[in-house]
Order: sequence, then C-alpha cells, then structure tokens
Amino acid sequence: MSLLVTGSIAIDSVKTPHGSVENVLGGSAVYFCFAASYFTKPRLVCAVGEDFPDEFRKVLESRSIDLAGLEVRKGSKTFRWQGQYVGDMNEAETTGIDLNILIEKNAAIPPEFSDSKVVFLAATHPTAQRDFLDQVPGCKLSVADTRDLWIDNERESLIKTLGVVDGVIINDGEARQLTDKVNLIEAAEALLEMGPKFVVVKKGEHGAILLTESGPTVIPAYPTKDVKDPTGAGDSFAGGMLGYLAETVDVTDESLRRAIIRGTVVASLTIEDFSLNRISGVTREEVDQRVRDFIKMLRIDG
Amino acid sequence: MSLLVTGSIAIDSVKTPHGSVENVLGGSAVYFCFAASYFTKPRLVCAVGEDFPDEFRKVLESRSIDLAGLEVRKGSKTFRWQGQYVGDMNEAETTGIDLNILIEKNAAIPPEFSDSKVVFLAATHPTAQRDFLDQVPGCKLSVADTRDLWIDNERESLIKTLGVVDGVIINDGEARQLTDKVNLIEAAEALLEMGPKFVVVKKGEHGAILLTESGPTVIPAYPTKDVKDPTGAGDSFAGGMLGYLAETVDVTDESLRRAIIRGTVVASLTIEDFSLNRISGVTREEVDQRVRDFIKMLRIDG
Repeated sequence: MSLLVTGSIAIDSVKTPHGSVENVLGGSAVYFCFAASYFTKPRLVCAVGEDFPDEFRKVLESRSIDLAGLEVRKGSKTFRWQGQYVGDMNEAETTGIDLNILIEKNAAIPPEFSDSKVVFLAATHPTAQRDFLDQVPGCKLSVADTRDLWIDNERESLIKTLGVVDGVIINDGEARQLTDKVNLIEAAEALLEMGPKFVVVKKGEHGAILLTESGPTVIPAYPTKDVKDPTGAGDSFAGGMLGYLAETVDVTDESLRRAIIRGTVVASLTIEDFSLNRISGVTREEVDQRVRDFIKMLRIDG
Repeated sequence: MSLLVTGSIAIDSVKTPHGSVENVLGGSAVYFCFAASYFTKPRLVCAVGEDFPDEFRKVLESRSIDLAGLEVRKGSKTFRWQGQYVGDMNEAETTGIDLNILIEKNAAIPPEFSDSKVVFLAATHPTAQRDFLDQVPGCKLSVADTRDLWIDNERESLIKTLGVVDGVIINDGEARQLTDKVNLIEAAEALLEMGPKFVVVKKGEHGAILLTESGPTVIPAYPTKDVKDPTGAGDSFAGGMLGYLAETVDVTDESLRRAIIRGTVVASLTIEDFSLNRISGVTREEVDQRVRDFIKMLRIDG
C-alpha cells in the first residue's frame, strides 16, 4: 500500500556526550522516510525554504522516496533546530529553534498522492493533521504522532484528531501528559478510549508498548551500546513500523508486533551515529539480519 | 539443586500513591524465598530479633521454605525499614531505617545447608557475602546482588566478591554507579569483566538486560497496570529466576533467559499489592499461565 508522510524537514545542530554536528539534515519526515524506505517507497509531503541546501535534496533523492510533494517555497526559510542530549540521553533539550516555514501554510498534498492508503501524520498542529487526512479520502490506515506543544495548547483539537485516526504513536512523557496517567498501560488505555484502534507508546531506550483491544504487548529496545545521537529515533521507529505495515495486507495484532520489531531495529541503527550518517549506509540485508537476531533474542522456548 | 539464600528479613512500613501499610513482613530474603518457592524449596539463612512477630513466622512457615537457618536472636531487634514511592514509583525513598540486627554478626549457615548447590547472596556487606560463600564449598552457582551503600563504601571488597561469584543481579542505577558507564550495555560489559559469567541489570518497570559472553539479551517487564507497591520487586525477580534455575540442570544462555521470564513474572505479581499480599495468594498454575502469556507476547513470527 502507498505510504504518505507529512512532517518536518529540518536543518539540525546537535550536541551529545559523543560529539556534535552543525547544520545537518534532519526533521521528523526525513527520519521517517529514510526508515520507511527499507520497506516501501514513501511519499513525502513537506515544505522547505529556498535556503534548503542542494546537497540535502540530493541525499533525499539518493533514497527510494517519492519527492513529488517536496515544496521549495520562495521567500521562506527552512525549519532549524538546535538541541542537546546529556547524561543517559533519554531526553532532548532544545537550545535553539527557528520555526520559519513551520508557522506558514502547510505544503499541499499533490493530486497524485491523494490515493495513498497509509498516512502518517508526524507531530504538527492537530487541525492541520485532520486537514491533511481529509485530502486522502481513500486512506485505509492513518496514524498520528504529537508532541508537548500541542498537548499544552491544542488539547481539544488533538483529541479530535485522535478520534479520527486508526493509530497513535506517542512517546511516554507525552502519553502521560495527555492522559494524566502515570502508569503507561493506563495511559495507553486512556488513549485507546479516545478513538484509535491501536496505541504505541515509545519509551526510548526502554522499548515500546503496543495496546489494542486485545490487551498490551511490550517490546524492548534493541540493545545497542553505540548510541551517539538519539535524534530521529522516534521518527525512525514510526517510519520502520509503517513502512513495513504498508507492505502488509492486514493490520492485525500480529502484523503490528512484527512492524514494531522493524521500527525498533531501524531506530537502533539511526542512533548509532549523528544525523542520517549510520542509517544512510545500512543495507536492507543488514536491517533484516538485525530483525532476525532481535526476534531470536525475544524467543523463549518454554 | 538446593538453593540457599542469605539476605534480610524486615518489618516494613511503606507508603505509595495507592495506599500505605505499617509493620508488615518484608526484606530481601523474604521476597526472594516467596518467589523461589514456586519452583523449589529455598533454604533461608537470616537472623531476626526477639521482637519478630510470631504471625510473621507463621507466614514464612506457610510456604515451601526451609527455615532451619532462621535464627531468632535474644536481645536483638529485627531490621526495620520505612520507605515511600512517589510519581512513577521507580525509586524507593527511605524515610526511616533501624538497621538493628543487620549491624550485628551474620546468621550462621547450618551444617545441613553447607551442601547447597545454588547460593544467592542478597545485598549485604561484600566481605560477608564472600564469607557466606566460603561456607558452601560445593556451590555450583553463586549469584550476588548489591546496593549503593556498598558501592560507595566498600567498592574494593565488592569488586572482590564479583570476582568470585558466577553471576550478578544488580539494578540499573547501581550498575551505572559501580562502573561509571551511563549506557547499560556498557555497564553490564564492565561488570562482566569483573569476573562473573553472567550479569543481569534490573530496570524496574522497563525490564532487564542479561549479558553473557555471547552478548546481550533484553527482556521487558511484564505489563501490569495494577502496580500498588514496588517493594520487593527486585528480590522477587531474583527469587523467581534462581528458584527456576535451581531446578534446571544446566546454566546456559537459554536457561538464563527462561529463568529471567520466571523472575519477571513473579516480580509482576509481587508489585500488584502491598507486602506479600498478592504473591501469597497466587498459585503455581497462575504463575505458569502468566509465564505462557508472556512468552507468547514476546514471540514474533517472522
């Protein structure tokens, strides 16, 4: 099934205990597409400014990503984010942000993308998320992410969005913030009551919880010690998960769990280097090998 | 194989967001024995004071636990702990402590226990841990836990203990504290280099990491939303794990992983009520059912 993603493209500067990079390619939609491109050819819908470096465009072109929805807007500037991670690197601290094009009108979904069957709505204004979704009338599987900003300022609109999507992928802190539940299973249950058929709570280095009407499943993170930069882990997780699901006929508890394994594995690769450095050099065969290792690791015989 | 455990018996008072209890039975050796008793008949070695309530003794007698090593010491007082958990309840805060008998001489290992084949050394002075171990010359599998106090004050002695045991079961914060490694896989590697053949890092609600020379395995915690009191979770985990291993012929990566599943499940039961209330009422069949559910949850087909 064709997979469409809306989200941000960013120029990032990131500092972690393992080094730093300046003005590198980032953004939720970029990490998502790189991850998804192992399994399908995602359709990217996003606007950048005229300052968007040509070399970054070439990086995107080097992957199996449909760029028909990539708008380069005259007179606008690309979103920029500066952040750092300290200690256990479980949480990003934003040290600088230039929203730029993010506070202008959204990119339009090209007519040839309106037949997309799977739609991922990365964290943007919840009203914009529903607006995007309305432009894809034949969508079979819609999934949204969100973030603290929208929970704080657009809670009602966000709850409306959760009422119309099939799934939500959200991190632990935000799940707690949105539901006022400390226990993450209870938080996921509260989210499920808002409408979606499945909820995935991302716990960073501690893995993820999947909740459907059949109950909760827990999946740990793939154990890697080479964590250099967690930026994009959550979006890579979503990209790997939905990229895999887009190639699956049915969305069942079983296929969701298989998809989470893919998301987990691709995220574990993303964080092993800054920006897209690690994931750019990984082959499908390497992803598949890590998936096999991970499945074997989780298989307890008796 | 016969399983011997040394550790503490406590009279606990605990407060959590879900309620509070006063003067209830607790202590590392008690939680360990309750958990292990689902799989084997553990041999308890511990001293209590003459204030130890008769009803608590009866509670211990009601389980399959060999109490030949339970010393009631005249003129001494039982260890008492007061603690509370707030927020996500991931960390206990000690609000009061009366070490009492814990700072006196250790209980002696009865002669009939000296043929024990598996020994669990709950967190006590690392020199006392080695002294206990010396009294069990035929031990085939020795495993130690420790805590912040001994890492801070008895680091060298603790490193000696890690050099003579077969396994270590330690929580995440203490693994980091002892190794100065933030990444838990790196911390586990550093611990493995100190001598043991396996290292288990307990991550509370986030599960556990097993490291052997073949590499790391991650196991999530069993997802329960009925978390009332985390006291004893780590000791129940160790008890379930070693109780199961004591009934297993070989200690291999496979059997360690199966054992961790048992430890995880018994710990998930312990925390569903205060003190030993939940785990006291659980049958072996209920444990086995949760083990089967958990194994199925982790089994990803393709």
